[in-house]
Amino acid sequence: MRMLTAAMLLATVSVSATAADTSMLNKIVDQAMNHGEVVENTAYLTDRIGGRLTNSPAMRAAEKWTQDKFRAWGLKNVHAEPFDFGRGWWIESASAKMIAPRPILLRSIPVAWTPATTGTISAPVIVAPISDEDHFDEWRGKLQGKIVLVSYPEDPADATDAAFRRYESSDISAMDTYEQPTTNQDGLKRRVKRRAFPMKLDAFLKAEGAIAWARMAYRNDGLVHGTGYAYGVGETPSLPGVEIAAEDYRRLARLAKTGPVTLELNSNVHFDDSDTNAYNIFAEIPGTDPKAGYVMAGAHLDSWVAADGAADNAAGSAVVMEAARILSSLGVKPKRTIRFALWSGEEQGLHGSLAYIDRHLAKRPAAVGEMAAAGRYGALYNYPVTPLPGFKDLIAYFNMDNGGGKLRGVYAEGNFAAVPVLKDWFGPLSSLGASSVVAAPTSGTDHVGMAAIGLPAFQFIQDPLDYDSTVHHSAVDTFDHLRPQDLRQAAAVMASVLLSAADSDKVIPRNVLPTQPKDSNPFEYDNPEED
Amino acid sequence: MRMLTAAMLLATVSVSATAADTSMLNKIVDQAMNHGEVVENTAYLTDRIGGRLTNSPAMRAAEKWTQDKFRAWGLKNVHAEPFDFGRGWWIESASAKMIAPRPILLRSIPVAWTPATTGTISAPVIVAPISDEDHFDEWRGKLQGKIVLVSYPEDPADATDAAFRRYESSDISAMDTYEQPTTNQDGLKRRVKRRAFPMKLDAFLKAEGAIAWARMAYRNDGLVHGTGYAYGVGETPSLPGVEIAAEDYRRLARLAKTGPVTLELNSNVHFDDSDTNAYNIFAEIPGTDPKAGYVMAGAHLDSWVAADGAADNAAGSAVVMEAARILSSLGVKPKRTIRFALWSGEEQGLHGSLAYIDRHLAKRPAAVGEMAAAGRYGALYNYPVTPLPGFKDLIAYFNMDNGGGKLRGVYAEGNFAAVPVLKDWFGPLSSLGASSVVAAPTSGTDHVGMAAIGLPAFQFIQDPLDYDSTVHHSAVDTFDHLRPQDLRQAAAVMASVLLSAADSDKVIPRNVLPTQPKDSNPFEYDNPEED
Repeated sequence: MRMLTAAMLLATVSVSATAADTSMLNKIVDQAMNHGEVVENTAYLTDRIGGRLTNSPAMRAAEKWTQDKFRAWGLKNVHAEPFDFGRGWWIESASAKMIAPRPILLRSIPVAWTPATTGTISAPVIVAPISDEDHFDEWRGKLQGKIVLVSYPEDPADATDAAFRRYESSDISAMDTYEQPTTNQDGLKRRVKRRAFPMKLDAFLKAEGAIAWARMAYRNDGLVHGTGYAYGVGETPSLPGVEIAAEDYRRLARLAKTGPVTLELNSNVHFDDSDTNAYNIFAEIPGTDPKAGYVMAGAHLDSWVAADGAADNAAGSAVVMEAARILSSLGVKPKRTIRFALWSGEEQGLHGSLAYIDRHLAKRPAAVGEMAAAGRYGALYNYPVTPLPGFKDLIAYFNMDNGGGKLRGVYAEGNFAAVPVLKDWFGPLSSLGASSVVAAPTSGTDHVGMAAIGLPAFQFIQDPLDYDSTVHHSAVDTFDHLRPQDLRQAAAVMASVLLSAADSDKVIPRNVLPTQPKDSNPFEYDNPEED
Repeated sequence: MRMLTAAMLLATVSVSATAADTSMLNKIVDQAMNHGEVVENTAYLTDRIGGRLTNSPAMRAAEKWTQDKFRAWGLKNVHAEPFDFGRGWWIESASAKMIAPRPILLRSIPVAWTPATTGTISAPVIVAPISDEDHFDEWRGKLQGKIVLVSYPEDPADATDAAFRRYESSDISAMDTYEQPTTNQDGLKRRVKRRAFPMKLDAFLKAEGAIAWARMAYRNDGLVHGTGYAYGVGETPSLPGVEIAAEDYRRLARLAKTGPVTLELNSNVHFDDSDTNAYNIFAEIPGTDPKAGYVMAGAHLDSWVAADGAADNAAGSAVVMEAARILSSLGVKPKRTIRFALWSGEEQGLHGSLAYIDRHLAKRPAAVGEMAAAGRYGALYNYPVTPLPGFKDLIAYFNMDNGGGKLRGVYAEGNFAAVPVLKDWFGPLSSLGASSVVAAPTSGTDHVGMAAIGLPAFQFIQDPLDYDSTVHHSAVDTFDHLRPQDLRQAAAVMASVLLSAADSDKVIPRNVLPTQPKDSNPFEYDNPEED
């Protein structure tokens, strides 16, 4: 009897909480869809502030503006939390022109954190595809006084897939398969190489007397990106580097096959070392039960600068802000604290969210040797994990960083046992098209570090729109590639889920605290045929 | 007996000719695929010469280079045939920058045949969508000193179709339906308006004290086009006009909704009135029978200048040249003359091919009144047609102007009775994928004028690739969007078909000599709801 009474009591509380939430969910949706500010705030971050490279003046403006907004909306504990990062860098103006055999302006962008040209420089080009140290010998003695075209001018692929799409139900069902979480060694190696190799290349080119280098954009149709990773103090390369649109680069390469080609570069870029810390921005709605822990939603506020960082990730940032605004304006009093996070340094290796882990959640052995070149990311899969006191307080983290598309549900990120609880929280959102819960893990953004240490950290499923095909990191990552109704829906979903999670009596089962996994194939040999 | 003998003699000749052709077809394919120059020549026209606006210095260079090539290959009667056109115009350099609220370089291009800015100009923008004279009143008194954004900043559509595709057999089968040829009044009205309205707009903007205007690119993803039609002597507008990429234009428009926006333009363009004639280029392989008439293949050599005019239409031009080179190098002795034509002024209204008709094929009543604003195109469907002596000599014309994609066969262009003969000529090309003959008519290029007066003028069916979606008239109409094997195949097909047609004993049945058609719906009323 007593046991029954206790169970009944719990059931009563649960029903009561659910009833309250359900009414509040209607208010949230009304706020998001009919009285929202997410569209205007996304436009402010993109059109007015523009691309927000970590530690650039534009990112500093965004850090200030977002805090001002949170405070104006009545959020609590609004603050910026520093972490060491590196140099600020920004483009004042830049151009690349072919001046011989005929004059044309090329579509181009300076590679992030490469130095300025000394005014306008011009020189003959040489096409010297170099993607590895093994290639240096072939070009030794041939680069003096040249602008070196370092990319292989690969032919374009046939664009046989639609650029823009939304998920069918079957696409989402296909994601609901359990995959053994891996330590993603490929991603790790790629990040090691993308920081380490450019420095070796710069030293080689400098030693050979080259005066600048250019690479080919990895997308076609005139798009440029400008991503670069030499952001550390003391890591700045010697030579200016520029990315040229694929069509323009291939034309240079073809012309250079049959005659001299002269390029003129002007890269009027600036470094800013006034503060080498980057900053994560936080805001909260305090919970009524100080011992109940917190739930958190986050998105990275930093971006690349070929355009305005709209889908990647003003959209996610503005949706996190809008969820905060909605819940604050509705005066919710959740049991758990709801924390809103805007990360910095994501584009250079998840720095903001990993710095948050280091400070609040858990320690891991530092990256050593080659891995150190991947920055904080190099320690991502270092074990054992040593939880900090705050480890237990994080009840759930939701990340938004897959563009501006409508939210369709959530990835359980390999936390198999979390699925029923997530279904409970996302269930009411089925008429918003956002109730899918799938087991699959995802990678490449700010929940990854938390998931890697067994914390309940999840990414939203989003309609892709033209994120992967066209806008991700590119010169058309602009506001107009977003869809206003999708942003409003995302804010409604995020606010609803945060409130459900903050009030829920259910607890997400923790994943195992990972240790170094065994080799997946203990019988493997090295294959000398593989690169 | 005598009759039988005559028929047998004819049959013998025919079989003998067919046998000779078939052997020659293998040589043609070998020349095209294994020893061809079409790829190098397309690259020369695009990479080295670049965009070839009618009467521009680059077009003049192309006119000379193509004739030099024809002569070097041993073609006969190589010459340039003048027709009156208008001014030369070219871009030395140009830029558009937003300077407030923040500085960014925009993707832009001066609109063809608009005047230069006086150095660098800057002014506040006003978004004043004007697409018709009816809209002038709304903006009167508001444009003084402004750069006027004249396009409505329409939201982008979802890009749910693949950019690149090849035809399935079913796509081609669907084209094989007879359609009543029309006098294409919609196309005619569009052409009238695209020449006449910009002049009225320019006069209005000038009278209102605006200093320049900008329009939005009609494609997304940063592409610009720069098409313009005020090419006539005495038609040059007063104000500089610029096309701005859709993403950049929409950003300007959004910002202008909530604050001042300042634009800086520099349009360093030049007019060249040294010769207001445009020139079609011709070359021939003379026929052995002077009374047998001629067959002809053609493509327009002129292009727009946002890029290099590769798919539109260096590809077609280089394939026509390559067919000439192949047939000349193989020493063919066709019964009929084979003429190769490279048209000019196509992009401004099929001027070159229509001038050819006026001079060699037939007379039509001149365009009058409003229709005169469409240039020669305005007389396209004026009847009655009065054949010139050369009318009967044109046995067949084949046009290539649907990009660089593989040839798949031919449109019979509504000449229903021509299908069996075309099948005879294209039949041997089935293993090259080019033997489809379909009845449907096509529009918008240089065979149209001939087809409109009942001549046997046909366009090739081509795999679309990314022609319509991406490259047509755009800033990425570059060589690398072509496919080398497709160009080689096209040259093989064109040379084969020309030779078959030049030697054929079959004659294409002429279409009827058109007269003014009856209204398709004699019971129609004007609907006042329609625009």
